[in-house]
Amino acid sequence: MQTVDLAHASRLLNHGPTVLVTSVHAGRRNVMAAAWSMPVEFTPPRVAVVIDKSTWTRELVTASGTLALCIPCRAQADLTYAVGSVSGRDDAVRAAGDKFACFGLACVEGPVLGLPLVAGCLAWLEARVLAEPHAEQAYDTFFVEVVSAQADERVFRSGRWQLDDAPEALRPIHHLGGGVFATSGATVRAGELGRGTA
Amino acid sequence: MQTVDLAHASRLLNHGPTVLVTSVHAGRRNVMAAAWSMPVEFTPPRVAVVIDKSTWTRELVTASGTLALCIPCRAQADLTYAVGSVSGRDDAVRAAGDKFACFGLACVEGPVLGLPLVAGCLAWLEARVLAEPHAEQAYDTFFVEVVSAQADERVFRSGRWQLDDAPEALRPIHHLGGGVFATSGATVRAGELGRGTA
Repeated sequence: MQTVDLAHASRLLNHGPTVLVTSVHAGRRNVMAAAWSMPVEFTPPRVAVVIDKSTWTRELVTASGTLALCIPCRAQADLTYAVGSVSGRDDAVRAAGDKFACFGLACVEGPVLGLPLVAGCLAWLEARVLAEPHAEQAYDTFFVEVVSAQADERVFRSGRWQLDDAPEALRPIHHLGGGVFATSGATVRAGELGRGTA
Repeated sequence: MQTVDLAHASRLLNHGPTVLVTSVHAGRRNVMAAAWSMPVEFTPPRVAVVIDKSTWTRELVTASGTLALCIPCRAQADLTYAVGSVSGRDDAVRAAGDKFACFGLACVEGPVLGLPLVAGCLAWLEARVLAEPHAEQAYDTFFVEVVSAQADERVFRSGRWQLDDAPEALRPIHHLGGGVFATSGATVRAGELGRGTA
């Protein structure tokens, strides 16, 4: 993983991939999947992400004021769906310790906030929550500011996704619903569109 | 285009496609591209979309309290980038009338709010703005509630994207940056992930 300039952090999420949200507070940690996130500002890099009130992630994020976004690849579709389908409060999960232990996920520690970053993901962003109690309450929407960004240089270099020669296993995934994902597929460069004469 | 049940409207945006935002107020209309949108609620179907303060769309949306989201396909990558690269306030655009006339875009009228819906797109959503002045000011983020949804049944049926047999030209697109888009590519169904023994 290579450090990504914070000025390019929004590019990691610009195309709407599904992400894993990780969190830690008072020695307990969790990971969930989130299809609903988007950048809202380039500089400083800010992101909005929806975290339902029912989730344990919500409790940890609210208590710690931090979260990380990890961008999984196609090879991680099963684990993405798995961590999005069971709660960190589930008895079997807690018996194993947490979702990381339960599903055998390796982590590294985030460089700025120490958040758990899921190994094998294409990119990692650590972020601090910008307290917005109304948006959190009314729309389950958290606004966060990214403070560190890293990406797998096989697929993200020079501030851009480089997907043309990416193996299928290393492509970002986009949840269509019901456990079916579309990968980030073929790329197309927009050409000049002539203005009509109308 | 077939009507989409509002309970399934969030599915249209779940995978993070780039959209076109259309608006109309007092007889003037506009269209811009937006890579930054996401669902925030299933029922009622609510969406967040980022609309910069500098845009003419912002002025029209604020004045009318409505907007539409149109989901372009790969065949529309050029026009998507074009309407995202020039302002509706541009002299040449205004000389032509508006961006629709300038770029030769055909429209149909939205069934509930009468908004201009761009022909050839894969899906159309009309929405009313939920007034959130702080989020609009601080994060350029508009929260809206979808009141009508339609989709091209060749690629969206029974409340789901059906991309496995979709021709490349009819796939949604996701802006990577700088006029390069990834299409919604191959699909993968997540399998059961065995819980580890850790």
